[in-house]
Amino acid sequence: MQLSVEELHEQIGKLEGWKLEQETLVRKYMFSEYMKGIAFVDEVAAISEAFDHHPHITIDYKTVTLRLSAKEESGLAALDFRQAHEFNEAFDKAR
Amino acid sequence: MQLSVEELHEQIGKLEGWKLEQETLVRKYMFSEYMKGIAFVDEVAAISEAFDHHPHITIDYKTVTLRLSAKEESGLAALDFRQAHEFNEAFDKAR
Repeated sequence: MQLSVEELHEQIGKLEGWKLEQETLVRKYMFSEYMKGIAFVDEVAAISEAFDHHPHITIDYKTVTLRLSAKEESGLAALDFRQAHEFNEAFDKAR
Repeated sequence: MQLSVEELHEQIGKLEGWKLEQETLVRKYMFSEYMKGIAFVDEVAAISEAFDHHPHITIDYKTVTLRLSAKEESGLAALDFRQAHEFNEAFDKAR
């Protein structure tokens, strides 16, 4: 179900570290060691398979960036935000 | 040690799937399954740590793109090509 503009802003307000760029949710995660970032990507992949929704991932040495676009044409939905919260939880464990 | 232009072209000719884009070696690797691409990234990370040289990695669903830039200002060296060959070997095992 698509979110209204108000709901979208409310959801982003609750989502640590993420911002909205052209209907895409973006967050950069920084790690103290390269292999910690890679272990985080493994967790992100497992979450992505569970949601059947795969963010665009870039790994630039110790920085991992996730970009999460709406799965349906209808725009970002509550599910995208639930997934982003799970990525944040994985980060809290991995860093 | 920096390679001459002739050596550079000779090395690229021997390197399956890679092309040169503005002094950066680039290859896109395609996988039949998302998790095979992720397992490949784990191998790429291990090789990168061994070389202490980390390519820029993007994961776009089942496509993994590696970008390998010269480590020193002096340009691409034989070592960059040895590393790219190792990535190709890892791909042959992972796909």
